[in-house]
Amino acid sequence: MAKQKKDAITPMDVDFAKWYTDVITKTEMVDYAPVKGFMVIRAYGYALWENIQKAFDAEFKKTGHQNMYFPLLIPESFLNKEKEHVEGFAPEVAWVTHGGNEELAERLCVRPTSETIICSMYAKWLNSYRDLPFLYNQWANVVRWEKTTRPFLRTSEFLWQEGHTVHETFEEAQEETLRMLEIYRKVTEEFLAIPMVVGQKSEKERFAGAHATYTIEALMHDGQALQSGTSHNLGDHFAKAFDIKFLGRDNKEQYGYSTSWGVSTRLIGGIIMVHGDDNGLKMPPRIAPIQAVIIPVQQHKEGVVDSAKALFEALCDDVRVKLDDNENNTPGWKFNEYEMKGVPVRIELGPKDIENRQCVLVRRDTGEKLFVEWGENYENIKKVLCDLLEDIQKNMYQMALKHREERTTVAHDMETFETSIKTNPGFIKAMWCEDRACEDKIKEVTGATLRCMPFEQENIGSDTCVCCGKKAQKLAYFARAY
Amino acid sequence: MAKQKKDAITPMDVDFAKWYTDVITKTEMVDYAPVKGFMVIRAYGYALWENIQKAFDAEFKKTGHQNMYFPLLIPESFLNKEKEHVEGFAPEVAWVTHGGNEELAERLCVRPTSETIICSMYAKWLNSYRDLPFLYNQWANVVRWEKTTRPFLRTSEFLWQEGHTVHETFEEAQEETLRMLEIYRKVTEEFLAIPMVVGQKSEKERFAGAHATYTIEALMHDGQALQSGTSHNLGDHFAKAFDIKFLGRDNKEQYGYSTSWGVSTRLIGGIIMVHGDDNGLKMPPRIAPIQAVIIPVQQHKEGVVDSAKALFEALCDDVRVKLDDNENNTPGWKFNEYEMKGVPVRIELGPKDIENRQCVLVRRDTGEKLFVEWGENYENIKKVLCDLLEDIQKNMYQMALKHREERTTVAHDMETFETSIKTNPGFIKAMWCEDRACEDKIKEVTGATLRCMPFEQENIGSDTCVCCGKKAQKLAYFARAY
Repeated sequence: MAKQKKDAITPMDVDFAKWYTDVITKTEMVDYAPVKGFMVIRAYGYALWENIQKAFDAEFKKTGHQNMYFPLLIPESFLNKEKEHVEGFAPEVAWVTHGGNEELAERLCVRPTSETIICSMYAKWLNSYRDLPFLYNQWANVVRWEKTTRPFLRTSEFLWQEGHTVHETFEEAQEETLRMLEIYRKVTEEFLAIPMVVGQKSEKERFAGAHATYTIEALMHDGQALQSGTSHNLGDHFAKAFDIKFLGRDNKEQYGYSTSWGVSTRLIGGIIMVHGDDNGLKMPPRIAPIQAVIIPVQQHKEGVVDSAKALFEALCDDVRVKLDDNENNTPGWKFNEYEMKGVPVRIELGPKDIENRQCVLVRRDTGEKLFVEWGENYENIKKVLCDLLEDIQKNMYQMALKHREERTTVAHDMETFETSIKTNPGFIKAMWCEDRACEDKIKEVTGATLRCMPFEQENIGSDTCVCCGKKAQKLAYFARAY
Repeated sequence: MAKQKKDAITPMDVDFAKWYTDVITKTEMVDYAPVKGFMVIRAYGYALWENIQKAFDAEFKKTGHQNMYFPLLIPESFLNKEKEHVEGFAPEVAWVTHGGNEELAERLCVRPTSETIICSMYAKWLNSYRDLPFLYNQWANVVRWEKTTRPFLRTSEFLWQEGHTVHETFEEAQEETLRMLEIYRKVTEEFLAIPMVVGQKSEKERFAGAHATYTIEALMHDGQALQSGTSHNLGDHFAKAFDIKFLGRDNKEQYGYSTSWGVSTRLIGGIIMVHGDDNGLKMPPRIAPIQAVIIPVQQHKEGVVDSAKALFEALCDDVRVKLDDNENNTPGWKFNEYEMKGVPVRIELGPKDIENRQCVLVRRDTGEKLFVEWGENYENIKKVLCDLLEDIQKNMYQMALKHREERTTVAHDMETFETSIKTNPGFIKAMWCEDRACEDKIKEVTGATLRCMPFEQENIGSDTCVCCGKKAQKLAYFARAY
């Protein structure tokens, strides 16, 4: 593939959007597809997605969920069954009107999300309370006809998982909604090293057709928020629209209560914008496609490549390690390349190192260099490397948390709010009266949207709405957002 | 979920098509979607697909392939670039004509296969011979507007993988084509326990736009063949259509040579129709979603469920084991249920067994019962069970091979051919002059198609075409096919 120079990345502070585009294309994470708004997820980006999938899928299965696969195309009449849902999604749907050479009797929409088709099947499968809960998930592609797109963050097609469950009672649906939100928080924080604010969406930002929507919200390097995963308690809205009924314990027919929850390839955008720097990506070790790269130095000298290969063999069972002994590129070029790709640890190995039975380990997160002895059967370097990867994982989370804290401010009035958004963009904690008018006005004046009402309703020393000054109901997080 | 009785399955000999439908729906492998021709892959079917994916994906990665993801929607103009390709696929394409409320300037086709969109990207990425080979694969859904459909075997949407590679020379492309075909043979035989006939397709059956198509062909229980995977050497056809060029070793610009290869959820249909019997499915242990099920007997008696749980815990790290201690169903009902679902081993555990520190193991493939002592820390039963699963795997392959051999006959003339197809339907080995007219005539008269010209060109004691009697070029396998 074509080679790029590290110095071709635009610095973050010069133009953050350009920095993002430079990083994702030059690291070959993604490319622009010939159809506007669509992306090609390239090998390095897809390998990251596979590791993200694995982390989530394991948690879904541990909590009793199974995967299924539902059709890509949904009859228009299905979309129309839930009023709010169709209003929310119809404007951004891609329509299939012809199959082969024939015009279809009814248009089919390419799924923007699958509640409607899945609910139609659930209605068929559900008989008795004994069949419940239904705990299913789907890994799939979805299409939403977006006007303004950016790879990973907002694209006309993206990959995601969508969980869809049915329960006997509203309370059980609520428990499930929060259980999955907690899994989202846990996996994004522990694997993606991204600290999350966890809470409930306002009515305005709620999923089309939901009773309540909950979210995990992350703060990007530029101070904008990224909605990173949502979990919806759908109440009995979809059950009523699709006739999902069962014979209850009291022998009477009743409606089920459903939930849905999803995370997508958008998370890749989050990883890039939370951890990246002017040199490129920084991959959290637990999901890094390559956790460590071995780069031989003076590889033309006898024994260097052989030693590098022996080290690779010793490490490859425990670590996702890559050996780059390509003769066409210099070690210096490779250092830059893997730094840009965000590989957590670089292992340098030259003739001197081999003589001393040691390696040089370089951390991507801090740039720190360590001289590490191989030890008997490479046991020492294996242990040091594994510990180092865990340390980098923790440090990356801490750095992201520190950045978020520095970028989280409190506003008791609109003047402070406006100043903060301009001078130190990030999360703004403010009290809110729960009136839609104030939410709208804040957006209009500052560009910030209500990200969530956090579960942790701390006392910020005010009980009046930041906008209207009336009695406030809730502490909320505001931010400009992707 | 709703419960079915085992005796509701139509016997194979009465109506094989009905048997198939009964088995796939009653075992909850799949259901019919609201849009005609589409399927819902349910949890048990999808878990099988996940295991199939894992087996193939591991082999792809071992041979240096990486996964990517390309867009679902392809501009009509791309499809039109390769003449044979568009002729082959245009009649079965689903067309997106509207995005949101707007009509699109150019129709987009929902990918029926991705050569065109992938080649357009490869043309962009390829510069020098140093960039080659491109070795990429995609796991994705595809849509083909089929008139006659049957779940897994032929559906308007299915899941598959499609490998797409580019090479410096024709010879390297040919090597890759055969390498992937060999991986297909290996995985289907070793994991799916399905013996394959491996060979080349005739010109008539070649992939639209390919230089040559190779195939693995399996024989179903009813004597019909199933094309189970294909690998195509695309020559420079797509490279020329999409301008995939590079600077060669001689510093001159030249076209690349490409391949593509795919297997799909169709393989699930193959597993069902090769191994199944009148009692339902038989899952090959290496890919079985559940390898062994523990069923407590007289579970109301003290200690029975506890013992079953202890056994489950002892086994679950080594075996995909399920404990069914649901009180609502009798052991007899469960025996039938898991037999129907094809779980390779049933483990019965009752008060007497616990007293004797033993279990009863029942094989799904032969029905044989074994009394097995737990041993210290369950070590003995663990070992016996693991060995038993491997033995079942081998036996299932042998049974399928025996069936195929019994159903493979030789024909030197059309009369024998016709009689064989009627009295002992299966593969017919016959000599062929390579003339399309004879291939067409055989189809017209017998309903059999040319499945492949096997790599193993054995001497069947004739060198004249089974149809026209002229000098024959090739031994070919014929069969009626799904």
